Amino acid sequence: MKASVFYGAGDVRVETVPDPKIVDPTDAVVRVTHACICGSDLWFYRGETNWKPGSRTGHEWMGIVEEVGSAVRTVKKGDRVFAPFAFSDGTCEFCEKHVETSCINGGYWGGAENDGGPGEAVRAPYADGTLVKIPDNAANDEKLLASILPLTDVMGTGHHAAISARVKAGSIVAVVGDGAVGLCGVLAAKRLGAQRIILFGRHEKRIAVAKKFGATDIVSERGKEGVEKALEMTGGGPECVLECVGNKESMSMATRMARPGGAVGYVGVPHGSNDGLDLARMFGENIALVGGVAPVRAYAEELLAEVLAGSLDPSPVFDLDVDLAGVPKGYAAMDDRSAIKVLVRP
Amino acid sequence: MKASVFYGAGDVRVETVPDPKIVDPTDAVVRVTHACICGSDLWFYRGETNWKPGSRTGHEWMGIVEEVGSAVRTVKKGDRVFAPFAFSDGTCEFCEKHVETSCINGGYWGGAENDGGPGEAVRAPYADGTLVKIPDNAANDEKLLASILPLTDVMGTGHHAAISARVKAGSIVAVVGDGAVGLCGVLAAKRLGAQRIILFGRHEKRIAVAKKFGATDIVSERGKEGVEKALEMTGGGPECVLECVGNKESMSMATRMARPGGAVGYVGVPHGSNDGLDLARMFGENIALVGGVAPVRAYAEELLAEVLAGSLDPSPVFDLDVDLAGVPKGYAAMDDRSAIKVLVRP
Repeated sequence: MKASVFYGAGDVRVETVPDPKIVDPTDAVVRVTHACICGSDLWFYRGETNWKPGSRTGHEWMGIVEEVGSAVRTVKKGDRVFAPFAFSDGTCEFCEKHVETSCINGGYWGGAENDGGPGEAVRAPYADGTLVKIPDNAANDEKLLASILPLTDVMGTGHHAAISARVKAGSIVAVVGDGAVGLCGVLAAKRLGAQRIILFGRHEKRIAVAKKFGATDIVSERGKEGVEKALEMTGGGPECVLECVGNKESMSMATRMARPGGAVGYVGVPHGSNDGLDLARMFGENIALVGGVAPVRAYAEELLAEVLAGSLDPSPVFDLDVDLAGVPKGYAAMDDRSAIKVLVRP
Repeated sequence: MKASVFYGAGDVRVETVPDPKIVDPTDAVVRVTHACICGSDLWFYRGETNWKPGSRTGHEWMGIVEEVGSAVRTVKKGDRVFAPFAFSDGTCEFCEKHVETSCINGGYWGGAENDGGPGEAVRAPYADGTLVKIPDNAANDEKLLASILPLTDVMGTGHHAAISARVKAGSIVAVVGDGAVGLCGVLAAKRLGAQRIILFGRHEKRIAVAKKFGATDIVSERGKEGVEKALEMTGGGPECVLECVGNKESMSMATRMARPGGAVGYVGVPHGSNDGLDLARMFGENIALVGGVAPVRAYAEELLAEVLAGSLDPSPVFDLDVDLAGVPKGYAAMDDRSAIKVLVRP
């Protein structure tokens, strides 16, 4: 089959790779109908992570089950399913505690060992724990499918940031990061009842999506100036800060603006963010740091129900559609920030 | 009056300083009957914090009200009171949210501007918000007073670590730090119902107190070996880790041993601990970092009731009694770790 493969910084190609097949009785093989390119892929795409050439890229996908192993019970051939960006067995201690990303048998799509998202098909380990079935009556509604697709990562991740930052009805919230995750963080905060949602951003297209998602204020200043602006606007800082980038500046901003007694919900993969973390202030003002890689499987059913009901729609994050051959172009568009998020239809 | 004054690294003296008096109508002047020397004082005592000579030392004290300003309502002359290590107005947003250490009018005892603990008397700002009255029937029970005294700091701080680390009935807990705060963390975890409490320590005297307080396991290994031991003993790490030191090694141990999905409750004043913080692991395993300088005022009534009822007794942390003239000796004993905690009777 064809799939997206990493060759080096700035070099992703669509190549022929081995066809996936059932290896363990708990596996499913799924034909991919929709996949995405993620902002977190830019760490390897830009050469900031030491990735091996030959690694498969991408971790967000949805598709139709083609075959299941003998032990699979919850999905069958022909079912439309989506997968969280991590697979998990659904039964271990950590899955039961809804930290599925720490599943003792779990792992992430792509890399050296697993199929990635943008490709013709995927071998899905632990199909019962991992895959989420989309009800048959929604399984061919193309508009609805584009709204469900962000539940594979960015919507669940934005929600995790909001939950971790303790957003609740009436909260004053700031979101650092105007990528798809930050934008979904805005949507998640709105959904949880935040009264005010400040987004840090400068890109017109992203700001438009943020406003649609519920942002009440847009701040174009960054760094120290951004922090000062947030402190001034909120009379001492937002209680809840969603850190959706993972670099030094974003973590510095988040930990310096959070209101005493508040929390930073962080979901940006750390790349220098430890250097930005202002531990002295966090200590002095009892600001919690909560979050991490989002266990989006934990939120799948809850968020899916709302998407199906029409009350939640994160699909505006997609602003570029490509086919499988267009994946390299999609990466380039994510890299130069001309695209917010790329939808791939293999 | 006489009080303890910092002159330089290793040099604390008892000197004549101005007598405290009512300045604001919300003040009280309290004659100090009991004070302490704190492990956190060692940062300046060892010259690791850039402290000004002439600063007043110590922040834990209890005494008898001598005079109150015209606006004070909750305490009167002759009342026995204790003070948390930070004063607070009791009415601002942060006091209402029980982050009294972030009070907009608050501050800490000692230093350049306020009276410290080990001295003959203290001017207490915001007496109504700050001071906790000890019921008259307990006010002269010397044994009980020694059990109440740790509520000024170490017991409240250990409790804050335990609460921040989300200790509850049945929790598996590790405590990094065998100082008075770590030991009180053990006691707090026990009180909250922890089923297993692992203390990292090597000092016989401290281990004996830890066992009395409820420690079920003592680990003498430190650093990487200590982490490995904890992971092995608990099959993957304790859910709740109390970080009660604040240096690089302690924070590294805490963030590397916490179980996925767990929490580190940190109360050790950060001195290099940001360098030890393993953010990559915390992110990958969703380990929360919660805590900070303990708002012990928030816990005062709850803990005092239990001390008065005889069900809570942190007084075994005191193993050296000195008078005011003995304060320099007390600092030296804290510094060489021959004392766990020093009780000063001015």
